[in-house]
Amino acid sequence: MALTPYKQLEQEWRRLHAFRGAMAVLRWDAAVMMPRGSADVRGEQLAALETEYHSLVTAPKITRLLDRAQASTGGLEDWQISNLREMRRQRDFAIATPVTLVSRLAKAASKAEMKWLAARESGKFEDFAPYLEEVVHLVRDKAHLLGQSRNLSPYDALVDEFSPGLTSAEIDAMFKALARRLPGLIREVLVRQEKQPPMPLVGKFSVSKQRALAVEIMKAVGFPFERGRLDESEHPFTEGVPGDVRVTTRFDTSEPFSGLLGALHETGHAMYDVGLPPEFADQPVGRDRGMALEESQSLLMEMIVCRSRAFATYLRPLLEKHFGVSGPEWSSENLYAHLTRVKRGPIRVDADELTYSLHIQLRYDLENQLLDGKLAVRNLRDAWNAGMEQRLSVKPANDLEGVLQDVHWAVGSFGYFPSYALGAVMAAQLFESLRDAVPDVEAQISRGDFTGLMGWLRENVHRQGARVSAQDLLKNATGKPLTASSALRYLEGKYLADESVLGSAAA
Amino acid sequence: MALTPYKQLEQEWRRLHAFRGAMAVLRWDAAVMMPRGSADVRGEQLAALETEYHSLVTAPKITRLLDRAQASTGGLEDWQISNLREMRRQRDFAIATPVTLVSRLAKAASKAEMKWLAARESGKFEDFAPYLEEVVHLVRDKAHLLGQSRNLSPYDALVDEFSPGLTSAEIDAMFKALARRLPGLIREVLVRQEKQPPMPLVGKFSVSKQRALAVEIMKAVGFPFERGRLDESEHPFTEGVPGDVRVTTRFDTSEPFSGLLGALHETGHAMYDVGLPPEFADQPVGRDRGMALEESQSLLMEMIVCRSRAFATYLRPLLEKHFGVSGPEWSSENLYAHLTRVKRGPIRVDADELTYSLHIQLRYDLENQLLDGKLAVRNLRDAWNAGMEQRLSVKPANDLEGVLQDVHWAVGSFGYFPSYALGAVMAAQLFESLRDAVPDVEAQISRGDFTGLMGWLRENVHRQGARVSAQDLLKNATGKPLTASSALRYLEGKYLADESVLGSAAA
Repeated sequence: MALTPYKQLEQEWRRLHAFRGAMAVLRWDAAVMMPRGSADVRGEQLAALETEYHSLVTAPKITRLLDRAQASTGGLEDWQISNLREMRRQRDFAIATPVTLVSRLAKAASKAEMKWLAARESGKFEDFAPYLEEVVHLVRDKAHLLGQSRNLSPYDALVDEFSPGLTSAEIDAMFKALARRLPGLIREVLVRQEKQPPMPLVGKFSVSKQRALAVEIMKAVGFPFERGRLDESEHPFTEGVPGDVRVTTRFDTSEPFSGLLGALHETGHAMYDVGLPPEFADQPVGRDRGMALEESQSLLMEMIVCRSRAFATYLRPLLEKHFGVSGPEWSSENLYAHLTRVKRGPIRVDADELTYSLHIQLRYDLENQLLDGKLAVRNLRDAWNAGMEQRLSVKPANDLEGVLQDVHWAVGSFGYFPSYALGAVMAAQLFESLRDAVPDVEAQISRGDFTGLMGWLRENVHRQGARVSAQDLLKNATGKPLTASSALRYLEGKYLADESVLGSAAA
Repeated sequence: MALTPYKQLEQEWRRLHAFRGAMAVLRWDAAVMMPRGSADVRGEQLAALETEYHSLVTAPKITRLLDRAQASTGGLEDWQISNLREMRRQRDFAIATPVTLVSRLAKAASKAEMKWLAARESGKFEDFAPYLEEVVHLVRDKAHLLGQSRNLSPYDALVDEFSPGLTSAEIDAMFKALARRLPGLIREVLVRQEKQPPMPLVGKFSVSKQRALAVEIMKAVGFPFERGRLDESEHPFTEGVPGDVRVTTRFDTSEPFSGLLGALHETGHAMYDVGLPPEFADQPVGRDRGMALEESQSLLMEMIVCRSRAFATYLRPLLEKHFGVSGPEWSSENLYAHLTRVKRGPIRVDADELTYSLHIQLRYDLENQLLDGKLAVRNLRDAWNAGMEQRLSVKPANDLEGVLQDVHWAVGSFGYFPSYALGAVMAAQLFESLRDAVPDVEAQISRGDFTGLMGWLRENVHRQGARVSAQDLLKNATGKPLTASSALRYLEGKYLADESVLGSAAA
């Protein structure tokens, strides 16, 4: 019996999914395991697979099958119709970018990533700049082609590839809403916190102990170690497919939080991925609904859950167990003060919730200018440092604290950064509704029980896959369209009113 | 300007080489890094890549280009003509095996490998047998198809895929020559060694210290850690491509040799791979000349070089440095006695040079019977144990010591085992000539200088790539056709006459 066009397409995408998974392992390996000198070899491998992937998606057979399947969707269920829409979307994106460009970009990105790693050792942006320039050049070409094909501005076309349906207009509106309140809020909070600085936490925290702590908490959250790993890399990331999901973090032996929070940020991503609808595991509709929503899950975990009194209550005895620490500075209240400390610093991944979006705005501005050609790569460091000074009153001491801190541009991810700020806004909106639906979520978390939290997210976010747009998903989950007002309410309540966001102020 | 057919073929194979490298990383990861529960996902990935590889090699375009290139080889150099021959060979093998079979075998092998790993924990062959049966079934189909296409017996077709040009006739002749002398030789040596047992070496040897020792020696041999790794796995292996070569070993904390010798065996493979002609790095003619020659390089390193007085002299102070051991039992003479200890044991990878080929003969017989259908997988354990008893007077205490010890059959590598015995024979023949050409090689090795050894091998073996057959390569390097007499001379001299094979007996 011949398969229907739709079923044939499912088969084709099963194969594409296997290719994607293979590429994910190669990228993970490149960042975590690969000998430094093998970058050229890996670049060739990734380029070959990406090229092949591209030619499989753009094959005339796929277009024919899509046309036939979309002409008669009578027997299909809602999810299958959404799956067809996502297949078409992937095919359209691929058709718009010629294979030579895909291959050149893959090679250039692979090389630039290794040069970025090397530059992080030498500390010199100059060692990396020429390779970034090549990437910018190729991404610009891609953005123009995608924009033409999708009737979007070049930059919006890149954003749309990461976060389907999101536009610069929405990003600008969000930044505008945040910009009205954040600078003042930051000033007020800084004054307030300066009056009551937390007691310092000093000590030496070995990597193996930090790792054991992170693993224990990740297990409590539900990370499936039988189908996943935690490793270390220069920059934390999540890679892989739901059946083999790999998160990384970076441990700092002088303090116990950054490695843990990096791991839990990535665990937020991983839990989204492993919670996706299993019946569509190898289909486009079974994937996450874009990077802004991805970041909403990681930031909800890292910022809202893990920087809460409830989490500090859960964490205190774990720190005692793993590091043998005790005393008043290790009280949950002092831990909470550290976890919510606001500071204008140079490093995005170390930034607090209040200053975080200022980092993103800088990158958003700079990557727009790089792509427009208004800013040359050779002037990027100066523009970066000037922007940091202007937005955050911070001067990076060196390139590691400045323009060399993020890997995104090296690997060609332009248009990704806004996902972080949008993700933070979405996270606050989702959490507002989650707290209504699971009133004792704070008490649960304070005892290390994450089932209420994850249960709601799984049902309302993870299991939704790519069935509807991120905006509709948010509306279905919260009853409201995307808005920055939940985020501002959350931040004001937590940092000014000291409201009981996940835990009582009177504790 | 249009590329010549030959140049177009080079381009095609460059892409195929990148695919091969990607698959190598996925296999390495599956054995070393992958979470146990992800085997199904990895199986799909490898099957997708193998299928795609297969369809790229068998594309009509390749056949057309091969026909055109082979019709006019006028402008081509010798190496390029050999390259064309190897391309044709690869294409012929691929054409002979349909893609559905390739894909099913890849999936079955991936599953069987994980089940083999699990069975090594449960200790029960029954847990693994059904998965092996599926692999045997598919390999049998493949062998028949390959045999028909290449005018070879099914088994010889499998051997030929691993070691081009080698046949059962040659394997049988070699085993016959060895069988005439080995059993008697083993008896004589056992009597002789029983009179002078070495002083026992006791201690606890941590994995990290063993690793540091192995790394130091691998560096001395020339292993390029900037483009390679050493890891641990259930079964030692070498994987990857010359620009990213990865070896593994398995450390036993109760003794210092097995992990080290495993690593150095694999280093022998790795040095072959990294010594291949760089100008043809991504072409078929730039690859190793088959598995028998591969094993000649690993066994030459492990058995001839590392189980020598010269190496024991080099090793003694290193053991002191890394493990803090001293005393008469750690003298180089006592180390040498351990390294050359002959014992009829159940485990192939722990076997000495004299009993090793008996292990191989057993596997050779069994895999022939499995493929013929004369032996059912469910009876394999009994046949294995009976064969061990008959050939080596050894009774495996359990399946781990018996039928579960090797991964080869699980991953579908039937026809591989003879490469080990042939490799040992080739190694002895090569080394006889090497010693004539580099008279002070022993003195060099005793001071940790491997340049004379590696220089000769690189020129006479590694740099030859796949230009000529293994038989011709051997003849060019040694002036003689393949013969077992060098191996017997070497074994008699070393184990009976106590001749100075790499170091003086009077030391």
